[in-house]
Amino acid sequence: AAMAGWGWARAVRGLLLDVSGVLYDSGADGGVPIAGSAEAVRRIKASGLKLQLCTNETQATREDFVRKLRALGFDVSVAEVTAPAPAACRLLKERGLRPHLLVHDDLVPEFAEIDKTNPNCVVLGDAAENFTYANLNEAFRLLIGMEKPVLISLGKGRYYKETDGLKLDVGAYMKALEYACDVQAEVVGKPAKRFFESALAELGVPAEQAIMIGDDIENDVGGAQQCGMRALQVRTGKYRPSDENHPEVKPDAYVNNLAEAVDIILQQL
Amino acid sequence: AAMAGWGWARAVRGLLLDVSGVLYDSGADGGVPIAGSAEAVRRIKASGLKLQLCTNETQATREDFVRKLRALGFDVSVAEVTAPAPAACRLLKERGLRPHLLVHDDLVPEFAEIDKTNPNCVVLGDAAENFTYANLNEAFRLLIGMEKPVLISLGKGRYYKETDGLKLDVGAYMKALEYACDVQAEVVGKPAKRFFESALAELGVPAEQAIMIGDDIENDVGGAQQCGMRALQVRTGKYRPSDENHPEVKPDAYVNNLAEAVDIILQQL
Repeated sequence: AAMAGWGWARAVRGLLLDVSGVLYDSGADGGVPIAGSAEAVRRIKASGLKLQLCTNETQATREDFVRKLRALGFDVSVAEVTAPAPAACRLLKERGLRPHLLVHDDLVPEFAEIDKTNPNCVVLGDAAENFTYANLNEAFRLLIGMEKPVLISLGKGRYYKETDGLKLDVGAYMKALEYACDVQAEVVGKPAKRFFESALAELGVPAEQAIMIGDDIENDVGGAQQCGMRALQVRTGKYRPSDENHPEVKPDAYVNNLAEAVDIILQQL
Repeated sequence: AAMAGWGWARAVRGLLLDVSGVLYDSGADGGVPIAGSAEAVRRIKASGLKLQLCTNETQATREDFVRKLRALGFDVSVAEVTAPAPAACRLLKERGLRPHLLVHDDLVPEFAEIDKTNPNCVVLGDAAENFTYANLNEAFRLLIGMEKPVLISLGKGRYYKETDGLKLDVGAYMKALEYACDVQAEVVGKPAKRFFESALAELGVPAEQAIMIGDDIENDVGGAQQCGMRALQVRTGKYRPSDENHPEVKPDAYVNNLAEAVDIILQQL
């Protein structure tokens, strides 16, 4: 991350941060913070820049997610989290959809207000251990039995990194159901434009004054750039050197980690 | 299946039959024969037509599969079965590939002769209950860790019908791994041309004198037609009325079941 060529960062007024792979590496043990990231969040806030977490996390309610992040030393609040489940609930209500949920047990409370009787769509999240053969067959049978199957996927990530290794993300299971039912899923979460727009609205800063910082070349960097934002890729989390040869997406800059990104951005102000 | 327009069937000398959905409906209970199919197999043999079963079955060795079919009343032998696992073993040997197997426990003996140490490819079959979150993650990690991931899929079916309902087939899981690893699987089994060519060689009849009979519009009918064969779709097994509007594949004829197909074909001879 050479500091030349960062002049565009002078206009920045707010940051959207991906969480897993940027603030911490998730894992069954609760995960571990990435060195310097908790301090970087404090420095962002002290600088007067606005901050919003823009995550595809669907293994917990926002309340539990924030509790976990705070225990890891991050000074964040529920209002600072934009996540797919609440966005999906808005969409379900708007369209009168009653979901069958194939999601993580800990996400279910986010759908407490939603009518789930006699389902007319399937909502797919990062169900992890709930991605069983039986549960996938059940979701499949519901979809294939619908006159016009509606599949809503909370993100479309390929995989993510946990402390004990890489894990298949919801996108892989989305593709399985898409293929089996010959249907195209509607994605709620990154990289959907509507989702980034919600995050920007909650950040309170227009796209051209915001920077997205993430470890996912397609869902974080590509998605944000499609919305008119600048976007940085960190070399932490699921980052792999081959990402730097991505055929379509080119970050505005690479940084070794969030701490370095914040160092450089604050120096421009 | 109006009998007019079947003149082309006069040239037939051999039949390739799909098994699940044509001879019987599979299921945890061993499955149930489709009415008239056992008698139809006997009539084919009595007529002097050659017969080969061309199946994507990967939940059992050919020996066990034939034992099950015989118990259901079908007069068939191991030599009359063309299945993906033996074809995959030939391919693995040709290319010096050492597979990690994500397959049904009962298929493993088909790979007894294959070196499976230090895997440099993944072979995916219809693993059914072995399609666990942990097993899929393991296969994914092996693939993503390879410089050039090699994924071999024993068929690419979307779903199949068992006695207790529709089940996701290997193709859905193939798509999940393809997407996660950004790789294209090599399919061994229907609808691969090479697989149909093996089946025709074992049948001992050239494509233009053979008819494929199956319930899968893409993998049976489309695949066989790509090889220059005629192909019939039965209205049993996974057949759905919407198959008759398939945008690309049109069977040479529809029949209600195998018994009707054999009736009509034998009348042409």
